[in-house]
Amino acid sequence: MTTLPTAGPPAALDLSADLADLLQAVCDVESVSGAETRLADAVEAALSACAHLEVLRDGDAVVARTHLGRASRVVVAGHLDTVPLGRREDGSPNLPTWRTGEGADAVVHGRGTCDMKGGVAVALSLAASLVEPARDVTWVFYDHEEVEAELNGLGRLAASHPDWLAGDVAVLGEPTSAAVEGGCNGTLRVEVHLRGVPAHSARPWRGRNAVHAAAPLLALLADHDPGEREVDGLVFRQSLQAVGIRGGTAGNVVPDACVVTVNHRFAPDRTLAQAEADLRELLAGYEVVRTDGAEGARPGLDRPAAAAVVAATGEEPRAKLGWTDVARFSALGVPAVNLGPGDPLLAHADDERCPVADLHRCADVLRTWLTEPQEQGAGPSGGRAAGASATIAP
Amino acid sequence: MTTLPTAGPPAALDLSADLADLLQAVCDVESVSGAETRLADAVEAALSACAHLEVLRDGDAVVARTHLGRASRVVVAGHLDTVPLGRREDGSPNLPTWRTGEGADAVVHGRGTCDMKGGVAVALSLAASLVEPARDVTWVFYDHEEVEAELNGLGRLAASHPDWLAGDVAVLGEPTSAAVEGGCNGTLRVEVHLRGVPAHSARPWRGRNAVHAAAPLLALLADHDPGEREVDGLVFRQSLQAVGIRGGTAGNVVPDACVVTVNHRFAPDRTLAQAEADLRELLAGYEVVRTDGAEGARPGLDRPAAAAVVAATGEEPRAKLGWTDVARFSALGVPAVNLGPGDPLLAHADDERCPVADLHRCADVLRTWLTEPQEQGAGPSGGRAAGASATIAP
Repeated sequence: MTTLPTAGPPAALDLSADLADLLQAVCDVESVSGAETRLADAVEAALSACAHLEVLRDGDAVVARTHLGRASRVVVAGHLDTVPLGRREDGSPNLPTWRTGEGADAVVHGRGTCDMKGGVAVALSLAASLVEPARDVTWVFYDHEEVEAELNGLGRLAASHPDWLAGDVAVLGEPTSAAVEGGCNGTLRVEVHLRGVPAHSARPWRGRNAVHAAAPLLALLADHDPGEREVDGLVFRQSLQAVGIRGGTAGNVVPDACVVTVNHRFAPDRTLAQAEADLRELLAGYEVVRTDGAEGARPGLDRPAAAAVVAATGEEPRAKLGWTDVARFSALGVPAVNLGPGDPLLAHADDERCPVADLHRCADVLRTWLTEPQEQGAGPSGGRAAGASATIAP
Repeated sequence: MTTLPTAGPPAALDLSADLADLLQAVCDVESVSGAETRLADAVEAALSACAHLEVLRDGDAVVARTHLGRASRVVVAGHLDTVPLGRREDGSPNLPTWRTGEGADAVVHGRGTCDMKGGVAVALSLAASLVEPARDVTWVFYDHEEVEAELNGLGRLAASHPDWLAGDVAVLGEPTSAAVEGGCNGTLRVEVHLRGVPAHSARPWRGRNAVHAAAPLLALLADHDPGEREVDGLVFRQSLQAVGIRGGTAGNVVPDACVVTVNHRFAPDRTLAQAEADLRELLAGYEVVRTDGAEGARPGLDRPAAAAVVAATGEEPRAKLGWTDVARFSALGVPAVNLGPGDPLLAHADDERCPVADLHRCADVLRTWLTEPQEQGAGPSGGRAAGASATIAP
């Protein structure tokens, strides 16, 4: 394994390498959000060497696609950027990557190995090796996922080149421990403003305490369970809670203002507007100001192409509860699921890592999905998807 | 009225001037905390011209006292500093002072007129004019009252020259609208630390929300009334409330910590330690950290010299609920009351002001108190203090 410099001459990627070696090579081209160019150049160069792919470029996003005239086109996508470098236990940076264990227990460690260059490595390997897949495939590698939403490279492509993202279904290679996680909950953030009347704290009865006024609101939030909703056969557990509170101006003043920030995660069969209306009804009488919100994404597992990827895993799909870029595909009318190597709970951690077995398992699932003969309508996957649905309580 | 420059040559004070003129002269020597030297110099110079007074100096504190061998010595004290300048309605600074109204309705406006150069002007006038008072008097003018407690000039005198502050009773000229406000409540501040377990807000059930945990605490504080206590014939209303709250780290994280700052004002018959013990009992089960506290001060109206000052006002005394420097005298064993011109609710306000009638009323009360013939034990004032006590519900 050669460590690639983080700046300097163009980096070269060998897409025919072993998956673990390719993961290390991709990770060792450091690409913290905003500094993806060198890795994007390497990805573009490596894919351009594949005669079966059309390669497109927009900023630091690279798109490669087959044109085989298949009945189905699917999208496999992943982001090239990472959060800033962390520290190893000895205090040194968590790049370049390193490997522990042997054989089936081998693990690659370092920034990006989990979130999400494992998915990128699998996609690059398959993009090069699957010369004649049974579905046409659009491979998408994009920038700026780990920063503000308005910079997101997938969002930029959706706005400027929506045709590049067209397909029956999209698979995002975010870490899921190689299982399918479908759709995602929507998210809504509001501030609840409580008002009082200031007074010297030696004479609090001259004022009205805005912090005390938060007591029934916090009790309401603590007691309220927005429940679960089944969408397209997956169960989405919703949530509602205070994520912040602030109030008070000085140690001798009765607070005249208190602000509680509330986050609601809602199932993707409800729109953002519906979720906001429900929340305002729950918080009737309170001054509620919306600060942030994003629609969820339906898993779309009723579509044959999506059911087929679930079938290829041989496992029950799960609902994705956190908001992810699948919602950007969903907004374009493309159902999307998450499927990638690595434990999602290790994303962004200093000790992020990826089991090599996860890389192979994801590659196997995607290869099966992309190469198995296409039957019209529901294939073997249709029955599995229905079975999954039947086992889930409404 | 000549406006004195805020810096430059020594300022001169004419202690025989009309009280309103003297108040304006004292105010127009700007003396925001930390910049009292020029005013202290002027006070020292003016008092040193009085042959009947011994004048002492410590930093920017000036002490002047008679030595007539009277049976009783009393202290009249006030601070020379002010909070920073404010703004008049037209945006200009609220110094130099200005006057509105005529005769009995005349009012002096500007920084320091209420807090508390009205009391200072009355004291300076009486210090110069009462050549042979019936009680020995120690006049105290001090610095740094409006800033951190450790800088307080009265505190410095109490530590370095406690004998300068000795007396049967002390009168502080803080604004009380010319009534006697006796003693002061103690104050105790604690932080209540609520702990949780962080989690992504998409999966809050993996964590424990520390902000939600504040609900029962805030409800307890909102519902709890620590009641009133009668001390030396005055009713001290106690209080307990949250004065601040903070919690939460990010909009997508279940808060793992929340801190509620609580202020308790307690009657002066309870020590700080007792108040803290009671509060900890009320908040049993919570993690309570004391951050700040000060003993209260008993009004001491059972002492003849204190009862006499109440008698001189001809009005019922009131309990002082906010903490003031009377507690510093109390800690030296000198009971103390507040009595000064101006509405205490206007202290620090941009439109702070002092009715000229308040100046004359305070001067009359203090002159009566300091010049009336002394009887041993309870004088006419003794009966009044007892009467005041009897009219107050326990």
